[in-house]
Amino acid sequence: MKLYDSLNINKESEEPMYFQLYEKIKNLIENGSFKDDEKLPPIRSFAKKLGVNNITIINAYKMLEQKNYVYSKAGSGTYIRGIITNKYNNSSISNVTLMEQGYTKTDQNQINFSTSTPNPELFPVEEFKEVLNEVLIRDGGYAFGYQEPQGYYPLRESYKQYLYERGIDVLTEEVNVISGAQQGIDIISKALVNFNDTIIVESPTYSGALAAFKSRGANIIEIPILEDGIDCIELEAVLKTTNIKLIYVMTSFQNPTGISYSQDKKLQLLYLAQKYDCYILEDEYLSELRYYGESDLPIKALDGGNKVIYLKSFSKIFMPGIRLGFLITPGKISNMVLSAKHSTDISTSSLIQRAFDLYFRKRKWVPHIEKIKNIYQNRYDIIVEGLRKSYDFIHFSEPKGGIHIWAKTDIDSSILYAAAMDMGVLITPGRIFYIDDRESNYFRISYAGVQENEILSGLEMLKSAYDSIKDMNVKNILPYL
Amino acid sequence: MKLYDSLNINKESEEPMYFQLYEKIKNLIENGSFKDDEKLPPIRSFAKKLGVNNITIINAYKMLEQKNYVYSKAGSGTYIRGIITNKYNNSSISNVTLMEQGYTKTDQNQINFSTSTPNPELFPVEEFKEVLNEVLIRDGGYAFGYQEPQGYYPLRESYKQYLYERGIDVLTEEVNVISGAQQGIDIISKALVNFNDTIIVESPTYSGALAAFKSRGANIIEIPILEDGIDCIELEAVLKTTNIKLIYVMTSFQNPTGISYSQDKKLQLLYLAQKYDCYILEDEYLSELRYYGESDLPIKALDGGNKVIYLKSFSKIFMPGIRLGFLITPGKISNMVLSAKHSTDISTSSLIQRAFDLYFRKRKWVPHIEKIKNIYQNRYDIIVEGLRKSYDFIHFSEPKGGIHIWAKTDIDSSILYAAAMDMGVLITPGRIFYIDDRESNYFRISYAGVQENEILSGLEMLKSAYDSIKDMNVKNILPYL
Repeated sequence: MKLYDSLNINKESEEPMYFQLYEKIKNLIENGSFKDDEKLPPIRSFAKKLGVNNITIINAYKMLEQKNYVYSKAGSGTYIRGIITNKYNNSSISNVTLMEQGYTKTDQNQINFSTSTPNPELFPVEEFKEVLNEVLIRDGGYAFGYQEPQGYYPLRESYKQYLYERGIDVLTEEVNVISGAQQGIDIISKALVNFNDTIIVESPTYSGALAAFKSRGANIIEIPILEDGIDCIELEAVLKTTNIKLIYVMTSFQNPTGISYSQDKKLQLLYLAQKYDCYILEDEYLSELRYYGESDLPIKALDGGNKVIYLKSFSKIFMPGIRLGFLITPGKISNMVLSAKHSTDISTSSLIQRAFDLYFRKRKWVPHIEKIKNIYQNRYDIIVEGLRKSYDFIHFSEPKGGIHIWAKTDIDSSILYAAAMDMGVLITPGRIFYIDDRESNYFRISYAGVQENEILSGLEMLKSAYDSIKDMNVKNILPYL
Repeated sequence: MKLYDSLNINKESEEPMYFQLYEKIKNLIENGSFKDDEKLPPIRSFAKKLGVNNITIINAYKMLEQKNYVYSKAGSGTYIRGIITNKYNNSSISNVTLMEQGYTKTDQNQINFSTSTPNPELFPVEEFKEVLNEVLIRDGGYAFGYQEPQGYYPLRESYKQYLYERGIDVLTEEVNVISGAQQGIDIISKALVNFNDTIIVESPTYSGALAAFKSRGANIIEIPILEDGIDCIELEAVLKTTNIKLIYVMTSFQNPTGISYSQDKKLQLLYLAQKYDCYILEDEYLSELRYYGESDLPIKALDGGNKVIYLKSFSKIFMPGIRLGFLITPGKISNMVLSAKHSTDISTSSLIQRAFDLYFRKRKWVPHIEKIKNIYQNRYDIIVEGLRKSYDFIHFSEPKGGIHIWAKTDIDSSILYAAAMDMGVLITPGRIFYIDDRESNYFRISYAGVQENEILSGLEMLKSAYDSIKDMNVKNILPYL
């Protein structure tokens, strides 16, 4: 146990003892002082040796485990995981990201403005059960065979029809079924983006897209998003000097800013893509959820020259766990996209595709979207009204739809995030939406997973968190970051 | 219609007219003579102009569509798709690959020794329906939420238990749920393989793995597989001089050769991986299907030093369409694997995971595997007996399990494939299992999708195909290749 002799805990320090211990063990791991799968000392004897409470050791081990430095075997102890990093793939998924997607078990009493996942009560479970069983009876074993990589043909037709009713005219041949929007981004990256290629994203943008592009070894250029969409002046300056493969944008209720592109901005962007011969990947995940003003068509609807790849998932509107989405791809790249899909997962679950096809054909989506929209709109109204009236310290703009509010205060949102968590309310700090994880006063408030009657108390708690920060010793909250 | 004036058809040629026309249009497309989405001439007027039958034009267009050079709009006509290629992703999926996975609609009367997908009648549909509904009742909306990227915890436990009963002891923490084996290969590639890294595969090997590694921009070195597994002498010669990231192997009933590694070969391979510090990706997709001899444990069971990543899917044993598999990853790389999974598709369908967990817990897999094994063993016996007795022109070895027979004749299997297709029997030509698509006399006979009573007539047809080749004009069969 020699190694552990270096682990002196300073009991007078302002840093909590468990956090000191966490930091020290972490450094030892990163320095390679441990063997992989080496066992850490048992809690009781270690606590005794260091002259601290058992709980200090437990907390430090817990934090090491959260950060994936160690793993525990039930009834056996805690072991070093060891670390290897891959420069194109080194971003271990942060707790913030997990929380945002709603699968971190959060305290029941916490108000979760971080998750963008709808409450499970909102999922159309009964309707889906019905179509699932209908498919099982109708198709038997065929519902469990391989589906074509491009997707179940009737579903592609159904989706074409869905788009048609929204004013977007595509060919069934252009529709590709994918296992959710993240896979869509991954597949397009594989098809179009190679090592050292350069791509453009809005800044800030969806962290999952950044991870996918990074994993291809791409250079990523961030272009700021303005009130009406990406800054086309800055964009053209880059396009003039750099060979760009892809521009990734969210034109409706952008994540995280909530901004929707003006029609004019869409045309400018399309013009630039044509002029400089690059593809636009348009990710539309929320267009159905406009509460005020008129819905515009996506860029794809304006795309005569086949420069736009259109990506759509229904995770935020129907159910995230079914993992289903669509890509509309220009014929020119369809071979590459199909081949990338095939090498990614061969094909999307045939059962789910067949069930969703029936869900479309029976027009069950119509009342469901209406219902979801009403519920979200009520939440939107309450939150916007609340923020406007009572919370001067928060600046925000009104997206008029979607599920996110992009807001800022005059302090670093990572600190606000930590303080808010202590108060029992979760927000998403701005830094995860930038490629360099930079400090930001911005944060995202999402109301997909928060009940109407919790919204105002959530905001109240956020205010308390803000107020408390000036009195807090910032060091004490660091472990959460 | 000037362009088409160059399209002279030689009616005296030995090449079928539709094939001449296909070739000429294909060349024009590849030369860039067409605009993207340009319409091809209507069938009737074009036939008239060229002085051929409508059916010649139809066949040529059909072949262009199959090869993805054109697409058709119902009631409108046939359009140029245009072509862009990506050097890491340029392999458009061949008809052979599609057929192999069983989603090309084949003629009802054809005997399909190409597909490795079980007949849908063999899927445990009723049992799965039962567990699906039980999950829907039990979990409601939670069955449709996001699942953790590493997978539904109870399913990971169930799978750990499944392995335990097979003599393989792993931690629940090491189990990652994935959406099928192909995704497992893709995720491990993302986690470990970067541009210009070098990896090793068996030769011949699974074409989907080649595609995934190629897509990462990897250099791929093929090492021959011998009767008892990969050639470790040649392997070490490469390891000595080259920094290798990963060795991809199938240790049980290798695809396509059917070879199983000897215990000795497994230990040698493990030793080399430790000595030269690289990972083994062990893909076990069929280990349950041994009909003769004793089952060995996979390399993973021998792996003390955490050098083996173990990949398992149940597509060939349960149902391919549910898209579910498992990775056992050493703790050292678990962060990277998790992050790669997350940027690939966030998480695998929660509904399917929960249903499959129940399927495991209720031990429904026990009688199912027993049943499948009996059926496949009967087919195996018939095919091996048949080949041994009556077909001198085919050389093969007996894998003693699995679903494939690797066989060869004295002629190029691509030609045999084409002739056999004409006779009504499908095989998989050897070339798709090599990185350079090279000519090979080997071919794969799979019996997962062929009924017992069809096997002998299938072999009979294969013999007729072989016999006919000497009389055939090879040019006539080229279009199928």
